[in-house]
Amino acid sequence: MITLAVDAMGGDRGLAVTAPGATAFLQAHPDVRLIMTGDEAQLHQALNAAGAPMGRIDICHTTQVVGMDEAPQSALKNKKDSSMRVAVNQVKEGKAQAAVSAGNTGALMATARFVLKTIPGIERPAIAKFLPSDTDHVTLALDLGANVDCTPGQLAQFAIVGSELFHALHPQKGRPRVGLINVGTEDIKGTDTVKQTYKLLQNSKLNFIGNIESNGILYGEADVVVADGFVGNVMLKTIEGAVKFMGGAIRREFQSNLFNKLAAVAALPALKGLKNKLDPRKFNGAILLGLRGIVIKSHGGTDETGFRYALEEAYHEAKSAGPSKLEQGIAEQLAAFEAAQNETAADL
Amino acid sequence: MITLAVDAMGGDRGLAVTAPGATAFLQAHPDVRLIMTGDEAQLHQALNAAGAPMGRIDICHTTQVVGMDEAPQSALKNKKDSSMRVAVNQVKEGKAQAAVSAGNTGALMATARFVLKTIPGIERPAIAKFLPSDTDHVTLALDLGANVDCTPGQLAQFAIVGSELFHALHPQKGRPRVGLINVGTEDIKGTDTVKQTYKLLQNSKLNFIGNIESNGILYGEADVVVADGFVGNVMLKTIEGAVKFMGGAIRREFQSNLFNKLAAVAALPALKGLKNKLDPRKFNGAILLGLRGIVIKSHGGTDETGFRYALEEAYHEAKSAGPSKLEQGIAEQLAAFEAAQNETAADL
Repeated sequence: MITLAVDAMGGDRGLAVTAPGATAFLQAHPDVRLIMTGDEAQLHQALNAAGAPMGRIDICHTTQVVGMDEAPQSALKNKKDSSMRVAVNQVKEGKAQAAVSAGNTGALMATARFVLKTIPGIERPAIAKFLPSDTDHVTLALDLGANVDCTPGQLAQFAIVGSELFHALHPQKGRPRVGLINVGTEDIKGTDTVKQTYKLLQNSKLNFIGNIESNGILYGEADVVVADGFVGNVMLKTIEGAVKFMGGAIRREFQSNLFNKLAAVAALPALKGLKNKLDPRKFNGAILLGLRGIVIKSHGGTDETGFRYALEEAYHEAKSAGPSKLEQGIAEQLAAFEAAQNETAADL
Repeated sequence: MITLAVDAMGGDRGLAVTAPGATAFLQAHPDVRLIMTGDEAQLHQALNAAGAPMGRIDICHTTQVVGMDEAPQSALKNKKDSSMRVAVNQVKEGKAQAAVSAGNTGALMATARFVLKTIPGIERPAIAKFLPSDTDHVTLALDLGANVDCTPGQLAQFAIVGSELFHALHPQKGRPRVGLINVGTEDIKGTDTVKQTYKLLQNSKLNFIGNIESNGILYGEADVVVADGFVGNVMLKTIEGAVKFMGGAIRREFQSNLFNKLAAVAALPALKGLKNKLDPRKFNGAILLGLRGIVIKSHGGTDETGFRYALEEAYHEAKSAGPSKLEQGIAEQLAAFEAAQNETAADL
């Protein structure tokens, strides 16, 4: 059995989304139990209304909720009995293998970092996410916004944790190909930080394939792509914006004249298929990566389908990428990394 | 009459693209003359083959070509009689109002900066471009890769030159709305450099609308969007990649089964319309902005249609955004800017 802790009150719509999302998820996975944190009475009502399999749900009553705009420090200090904090506590205490929250990202990151701590040798957690794809390409991108300024060492650490996570989730794909987001493929390109990161990765034991440009990331040019949180966030939001923009452009074109409107009827299955394949809800579930425990952040504004996909992400990681498994690989990579740096130092 | 200088040998395919591109452009614009720089014999042959109106073309014979991978410093030092350098010289000498090259970006930027110099008060030129749109939205983005590291002052200068250029080209749109690319809309977001830039822009006389996130840039949320060259380059390439990716996804979906293949026949006009509207060749022509003269960089791998659009960009700027016009507006903005900073300093 896998047990996931769910912050039932988080997100823009709280229980109205988490209760039916959790219900649909449980129905699809008979090997899962949930610990749902939040107001007990409201949780009972919402879960009963959704027709949830109550035998596989433990309700953990909490009295507080972290506000969507609340400052991380305030959440940490004043919301010790919040649904978010108590969900993360379940992972710390070994009662759940992963926690899922649609609450405020900054507060969730601060809480997860405070409660779980980072993996030894990893200075800062990053936000990682699998990018949209309509094919078999799977690409993990990080950092998507947790750290707007990063040192070369921190970027290299992101590469290591990203590579280990990818390998744990997709072992059949071999050694993950790690790419560094840059403005060109040559090693002389980029800022000093990026150039130094390139050198660190070149000397690591990772399967580093060099700099990659962001026009290639949706084509599976790399399995893991690394950038600082500013660049990664801009990249992710640009993809989201461009995919949505193209959807709108298709719609406008098919409504531009009578002939195209008629053609749209015939094209409906294809257009629906496309929309379905690239449904952003399917790519919901960002990973707070680098922590001693699995924490998944759902988009705050998602619906029950999107929330269900965030639970799926947590489930897959809990099944095959538990922290003990990751930590061993990360420790080996970090050791190889340090050895390479010492060698370089000795060469000088 | 407008006179443009054209580096006829630049780009991956040189004359095979520039000669027919220039010919089509001249045919559409009877009020234009071209000075084409390159090998005289080859130019004569290529232009005659393309059926060019020779009466409106001056051939300026040059003996050198800058390589597509040549280092900027080598081009500057060793290629004083290159088609690129001589094309830029025409602008400096007042013989042409703008220069267009599909040659190597680094060499073109170094050459243009060396020959033309920057506008007083502008420390560094930026690369600016109008983003793709299928509607009436026009958005100018900069810097798209010239400066991977920027100070707040330089970013504010980009905002000023971008705003002045946009206003000169689109006076009917009123005061250009300037947005700063950031990872969130709140003023506490971003790196220290971005936060300081925010403050500078807030105190400027620009129509600064604050931070904008990159998922909104294709929707015309701002007229001018500013970022450093690293972020801007990643953003632009992500858009290019995502639009192309969507094109591929549409194609695959319409080929996924017999019904969709049949529907594709009916949908062909709409799909072609979409492809035509978002044809990247239409958005060819990056502006080397902040120089005392107009220089347009065409994509090196474009075809004659794309090259023609780069000439169109040069033509429109030469008509309505000449450097003397821009320089006056920029001087006023910079003066207001400095006054605001002195006031702030006096307040401390």
